[in-house]
Amino acid sequence: MEKIAITDAMILPMTEKGKELKGSILIEDGIIKEIGNQIRTDGARIIDGSKMIVLPSFINAHTHLSMVLMRNYKDTLPTLSQWLGEIWPIEDKLNEDDIYHASLLGAAELIRSGCTCFNDMYFMQWQTVKALKKAGIRGVIGQTIFGDEKATIDRIQNNLPKIMDEADGDDRYTIAIAPHAIYTCTKEALKLARSTANRMGLPLHIHLSETQKEVEDSLKEFGSRPAEYIEKLGVLDGETILAHGVHLNDIELELIRKSGASIVHNPASNCKLASGIAPVAHYRDIGINVALGTDGASSNNNLNMLKEATLASMISSVTTMNPNALTPFDILSMATKNSAKALGLDDRIGTIEVGKDADLVLFNMDKVNTTPTNDPYSAILFSADKSNIDSVLCKGKVLMESGMLTTLNECEIIENTNSQWEDIKRR
Amino acid sequence: MEKIAITDAMILPMTEKGKELKGSILIEDGIIKEIGNQIRTDGARIIDGSKMIVLPSFINAHTHLSMVLMRNYKDTLPTLSQWLGEIWPIEDKLNEDDIYHASLLGAAELIRSGCTCFNDMYFMQWQTVKALKKAGIRGVIGQTIFGDEKATIDRIQNNLPKIMDEADGDDRYTIAIAPHAIYTCTKEALKLARSTANRMGLPLHIHLSETQKEVEDSLKEFGSRPAEYIEKLGVLDGETILAHGVHLNDIELELIRKSGASIVHNPASNCKLASGIAPVAHYRDIGINVALGTDGASSNNNLNMLKEATLASMISSVTTMNPNALTPFDILSMATKNSAKALGLDDRIGTIEVGKDADLVLFNMDKVNTTPTNDPYSAILFSADKSNIDSVLCKGKVLMESGMLTTLNECEIIENTNSQWEDIKRR
Repeated sequence: MEKIAITDAMILPMTEKGKELKGSILIEDGIIKEIGNQIRTDGARIIDGSKMIVLPSFINAHTHLSMVLMRNYKDTLPTLSQWLGEIWPIEDKLNEDDIYHASLLGAAELIRSGCTCFNDMYFMQWQTVKALKKAGIRGVIGQTIFGDEKATIDRIQNNLPKIMDEADGDDRYTIAIAPHAIYTCTKEALKLARSTANRMGLPLHIHLSETQKEVEDSLKEFGSRPAEYIEKLGVLDGETILAHGVHLNDIELELIRKSGASIVHNPASNCKLASGIAPVAHYRDIGINVALGTDGASSNNNLNMLKEATLASMISSVTTMNPNALTPFDILSMATKNSAKALGLDDRIGTIEVGKDADLVLFNMDKVNTTPTNDPYSAILFSADKSNIDSVLCKGKVLMESGMLTTLNECEIIENTNSQWEDIKRR
Repeated sequence: MEKIAITDAMILPMTEKGKELKGSILIEDGIIKEIGNQIRTDGARIIDGSKMIVLPSFINAHTHLSMVLMRNYKDTLPTLSQWLGEIWPIEDKLNEDDIYHASLLGAAELIRSGCTCFNDMYFMQWQTVKALKKAGIRGVIGQTIFGDEKATIDRIQNNLPKIMDEADGDDRYTIAIAPHAIYTCTKEALKLARSTANRMGLPLHIHLSETQKEVEDSLKEFGSRPAEYIEKLGVLDGETILAHGVHLNDIELELIRKSGASIVHNPASNCKLASGIAPVAHYRDIGINVALGTDGASSNNNLNMLKEATLASMISSVTTMNPNALTPFDILSMATKNSAKALGLDDRIGTIEVGKDADLVLFNMDKVNTTPTNDPYSAILFSADKSNIDSVLCKGKVLMESGMLTTLNECEIIENTNSQWEDIKRR
């Protein structure tokens, strides 16, 4: 595999605030081999980093990739239930081709916004893995569970092998067991999801406490709040990724903290759908790992982790009335190393360190909106936007260079997705 | 002047929701001459709009353009007063060259983000006008007032003529009288600012009720809340632009409504500095015109009106717990026609209508992040970003085409601004 040297860049390794440095990065066999001012560049392809800030590429810790198909589709209907009444019949009609094309489009969108790893919850994801391999990005593929025990067994026996076959041992693809939510899965299904995850050594990924209504329904139906309920069922016993976590009381937070589960903050979806604002600075302060995700593109309506990070900062500052409750370093940590930790991938990605995989995003700061640059963390979080993203690497492979994607044909993807979407509406 | 036809586009005229149409726009002598499916394109330069959504270009109703110099400069210091302690000594050192180069950079940033008119409050703005003429964008130039009556007379007698000389009758440049705030101007200065504005037929532009502290200080010092105080002084008697308006009670809102003053919402600055969230859906509901602005780039840290609009939507939905309190159409109205109205320019700009000036922004929707497009308002507000902005026109002049600026040399501007900034820090 290619040897690559990114030279003379401003590097934000995201290991610790204050550790930023001006230097170079040597990549061999997909791994970061050297970082510093005296790296061996002989035989390496040189990427001039002199106008760049290099960060670990973003990790989207909660999304539904193929929902890009329903982007901006009737999303301003008066009520959530009216909107879902439009979305669900569409989802029932989706086929494998739809998932493949939508996944390719989603992957292209992720790369363009500096993201090379995401945590997915959706359907027919062997098609997603096929698209990801073409795109060259990673994925944690959550086998979605809906319904009862029988449906769970069916999904795990029939779908999981297809995903694993398609992944074919490629370590960029890992699996999660993803029961959708406490209000869409039976008790037995949730327990079976957990035992399966533990037996296979996989994380469990679930929506939890997204809305006040979910909490109220849980109290009515199960006699306890959502986190208490899943704790009693044993669902918190093992590696767990909790998406949203907007409405959690102190007892629930203590259960989550003790369990070691991560909470994935999805500020755009939570704001847009008026679900509420998760007080994530507090979660962090009491010792919970807080990751960042975009949720699906039909409730966001994009997959841009930098936009998500900026919004997370804005709403944290104003709701805590403390602009430093979460600093730019803290917020960018959520989008990189905290998300890696949530997905169980922090031994490989999420920071720039020798020995880690070279998953990197290069921001070209030589643009009007980032002049002068001054504080590099503030410059990335508040001034930069997607148009500053110049190059993106995943496991040492260059997926975008000078603003051009190297693995995907965007024109073709756009055309195919549009025609697929027109066809879906006609079905 | 050139005749231009934008053909086969999706046009959002922003006159009324539901009025979007697929059609073409004919521009002659800077004016929109025809809109429809049968326009006369003979002799016109054709801009293919078939993949575009065309909107009135954005109007930034409150900013301090030259503060781009202090972008990301020590903006994460623990307290606002510590930060201001760093900013004010810098401002004291600024010279005319700094203002010129910073204004050029700010203008380039505005054009790139689809904005061709802004409402400025800063210093030595004859240099800003000089830069704007080069850039080809509009500006409402607020002659800033600080201090007492004597200082006000001095500024109005010495600086205002320089601004007007530089503008030289070009109707793209209008003037406002801009007393900074109630806590930086004496009673006499505020009254003089108002009488000057009325005598000259100019709007008055002032920061008002940005923070809770401002309200408390006003109660202590003047025995009334900020809007009551300026109302008593007569400052609301005439065309008025109130920046921020975060902390206003019902009595104040009624005074503002009756006066016909506009409030400029600055959500990024208000969130980032933890000032609070202005309940602008409520302001709109009771009949106050709500415009949108970015504030200065040192408290934002950019001048991107589309980012500002998206944030305005997010925080409106989540704080009202109603995703439709302000619809995407409402939010985009704030960024276009409501801002035009605030600046007294709604007879010329802010909507796409025959007879209005051709101030337009063209979004290329043929990108992965806007595929499928579906609802055009949602697509612009939630899915599109600056990288979708393809072309920008001001008064019929093309300032950006296919992503390239036509009037400004960005490389040169970046280099000059950086060297100016290094020099300022050394002074």
